[in-house]
Amino acid sequence: MKRLILAALTASALTSPVLAQRTAPPMPAIVDPQVTQLRDAALKVDTAWDIIEGLTTEVGQRLAGTEAEARARTWAVAKLTTLGFKNVRVEPYRMPVWERGAETAEIIAPFPQKLTLAALGNSGATPATGLTGEVVVFANMAAFQAAPDNAIKGRIVYIGNAMPRTQDGSGYGAYGTARFVGPALASQRGAAAIIIRSIGTDHHRFPHTGTTDFPAGVKPIPAAALSVPDAEQLERIAARGAPIRMKLVLTPRQVGMRESGNVIAEVPGSDPSAGIVLVGGHLDSWDLGTGAIDDASGIAITAAAAKRIMDAGQPRRTIRVVWFGAEEVGGMGGAAYARAHAGERHATASESDFGADRVWRFEVNLPPAAKPVADRLQTALAPLGITRGSGLGGDGTDIGPTLKLGTAAIDLNQSGWDYFDTHHTPDDVIDRIDPAALRQNVAAWTAMLAVVANAPEAIDAVKPR
Amino acid sequence: MKRLILAALTASALTSPVLAQRTAPPMPAIVDPQVTQLRDAALKVDTAWDIIEGLTTEVGQRLAGTEAEARARTWAVAKLTTLGFKNVRVEPYRMPVWERGAETAEIIAPFPQKLTLAALGNSGATPATGLTGEVVVFANMAAFQAAPDNAIKGRIVYIGNAMPRTQDGSGYGAYGTARFVGPALASQRGAAAIIIRSIGTDHHRFPHTGTTDFPAGVKPIPAAALSVPDAEQLERIAARGAPIRMKLVLTPRQVGMRESGNVIAEVPGSDPSAGIVLVGGHLDSWDLGTGAIDDASGIAITAAAAKRIMDAGQPRRTIRVVWFGAEEVGGMGGAAYARAHAGERHATASESDFGADRVWRFEVNLPPAAKPVADRLQTALAPLGITRGSGLGGDGTDIGPTLKLGTAAIDLNQSGWDYFDTHHTPDDVIDRIDPAALRQNVAAWTAMLAVVANAPEAIDAVKPR
Repeated sequence: MKRLILAALTASALTSPVLAQRTAPPMPAIVDPQVTQLRDAALKVDTAWDIIEGLTTEVGQRLAGTEAEARARTWAVAKLTTLGFKNVRVEPYRMPVWERGAETAEIIAPFPQKLTLAALGNSGATPATGLTGEVVVFANMAAFQAAPDNAIKGRIVYIGNAMPRTQDGSGYGAYGTARFVGPALASQRGAAAIIIRSIGTDHHRFPHTGTTDFPAGVKPIPAAALSVPDAEQLERIAARGAPIRMKLVLTPRQVGMRESGNVIAEVPGSDPSAGIVLVGGHLDSWDLGTGAIDDASGIAITAAAAKRIMDAGQPRRTIRVVWFGAEEVGGMGGAAYARAHAGERHATASESDFGADRVWRFEVNLPPAAKPVADRLQTALAPLGITRGSGLGGDGTDIGPTLKLGTAAIDLNQSGWDYFDTHHTPDDVIDRIDPAALRQNVAAWTAMLAVVANAPEAIDAVKPR
Repeated sequence: MKRLILAALTASALTSPVLAQRTAPPMPAIVDPQVTQLRDAALKVDTAWDIIEGLTTEVGQRLAGTEAEARARTWAVAKLTTLGFKNVRVEPYRMPVWERGAETAEIIAPFPQKLTLAALGNSGATPATGLTGEVVVFANMAAFQAAPDNAIKGRIVYIGNAMPRTQDGSGYGAYGTARFVGPALASQRGAAAIIIRSIGTDHHRFPHTGTTDFPAGVKPIPAAALSVPDAEQLERIAARGAPIRMKLVLTPRQVGMRESGNVIAEVPGSDPSAGIVLVGGHLDSWDLGTGAIDDASGIAITAAAAKRIMDAGQPRRTIRVVWFGAEEVGGMGGAAYARAHAGERHATASESDFGADRVWRFEVNLPPAAKPVADRLQTALAPLGITRGSGLGGDGTDIGPTLKLGTAAIDLNQSGWDYFDTHHTPDDVIDRIDPAALRQNVAAWTAMLAVVANAPEAIDAVKPR
């Protein structure tokens, strides 16, 4: 076997245009030993764990715009102050708030039984006594779209999906359409309500909630996600052929405009003209779990890394840690931040909002003059098992509006292999977090900050991806 | 390494009293080739899967004594008749029925948040508007027992545990006492209510329900199980030191005497004097999941195996398949069966009620004259990865009362390694079952029935273990 592989390699080397252009593999960029030292030291501390444990225990769920999110801001200010950050403050804004009510689903015929589901954010409500109707089952969005309106009108629409597990999380965008736009489309076609198979990769009886959008003029109908086993149960029942009657009770409500806010903390740099290095995640969470992976992890990882840099001495660039509010329900915090800080010079922006599994890849969107920064990042991150991706960086709901203004981006991508097992479910609790993987995240962000905040190169504006 | 092992074996052989008595290892008993053939053919059919899929889809949960369990009996009679069994019938009995109501738990102070829990069977009720009280936290039963009564009186008692994962399931008996007797003891000591850490080995937000017992004269107090993550959350909060106030709403009720029943089917044998080979599991389930592993699996495995024997020709002994009612809530079905059939001669009894993971061990309680039967079982089961245990067989709630009358026993033990991850939770659905492991079970039970139902030896009464 070894001989065959060698033969294949030789053949490939002779014919590969990539290898043919190179006489020798590229040599790694040289990195300041302090970066290496900071990175490795970060693998030994549990600041991030302490933040996650504290927030998820002492606050728990913190749905955007509620008094729970307000308590989370109070907690955050105290925590960031205790950690030693400067300029700790809340920047408030107002936003519309939706709150969950009762939620039950019951098959009345042909096989009476209860199903587990959760309303989607912005779902309309059934009467308090419930809504009873016939279920029309579609395997996926394509089948729903292909069906005639008269198959949908007045019915409870079900839309399935076959979301695959992927490391880069690309399944979410591709298979999430049933949640993102399914309810509005079903409403426009006259459906009484819509239930979807959760946008998730697990097989546990946890529904995955998440926001849906009813554009102006489209009536919000009751909209909910069944857990994956319940969705497959409904599909099995439908396969028997008899009409399915279901009683739905969903009583969420829009409670009007409320206050939310971003919590900001800084490590002031020695060279204000060099631009701000913006890092963060979101403080709010969905209301079913305690938001450990989404996104106590992200705020904890970024703050823990910034603290490592702060404790090692003043960096060249100011590091700004932002714990954004109201990400889950529409990115209001990120939008408010960009509005308030559009006049400031940001060098880079980076967001951690994909759980707490290991960082496996980094991607950047840097101006040409800052190419050596990416090369040094590659050297600094490689020992943590992190590869350099070939795509253009610049991902994140919260930093999105700031990136659109031309800010350079550095993405540290976490593995999404297991992320959608837990995402937006009641099971998003600290039990899902592996402390060793969490430390690897902090080490990666520490190395990134050590390289970027102290880079002598100018990091000017870029064209957003 | 190989040399070291050989040396160790030699030393052991010289000193081991067991090996010293034997001049050669025992030769395997010879088994009829038809047994081998039936066993291997059973690995290729999905009768058991079809039964589980049908029952859990077309009936779903089937709490003992409810109309759902009645529907399950109707379904069972139709299914067993379709499969070709003879003498298919229901043997009814009456029993007290408890039904779940609303169930919520909310920490009011110091850190307001909801916890996930489920009432235990026979739990008392709080007022419909709830019960608010201070929580007193005990790490385990020993700490609860060591505490003075004044620490308990008027409070909501919490009892934790550290149940370990074991293959033989022995953790359940050892760590389950907080559920089995904790509520009655807490009531006797004046507690307002009791919440326990679920008797389970998982870390998901599913509470594990199960029956508790309030003996006559002991007032049933509200009693519920928190999911393991919620229990650990409560313990983390308690570790902060501030008093914990909780609001509990639990509104289950005793609804009085109702009808339940055992469903019975037979493969008539050619020699009625040889005694009945009794196999089965329980038809009822807890009300949170669809009872796939507990115990649609058991009824499916035993019936599928009996059908393999039936289809191969008439066995010597009658095989009686019993799908017992009301196991979960107190073993009423098994008791009713023993009362009704005490006058009949049973050769052996075997129960499958430990999920659908692979059978890893068998143990017997057979009379001395039937020792060759166990030896042949050992030969027949070994190719399925099943070892012969050194303990005395005779386990099972449903067959227990029949075993007490002196019936010989053959236990096929499933691995319990993962069983208590799912046991009595909403997650007990067909998604938890591995079809390949399920087929191994059916093959094991087919081999067992092929050996035992056709054994020429007499299988007389034994002393119960």
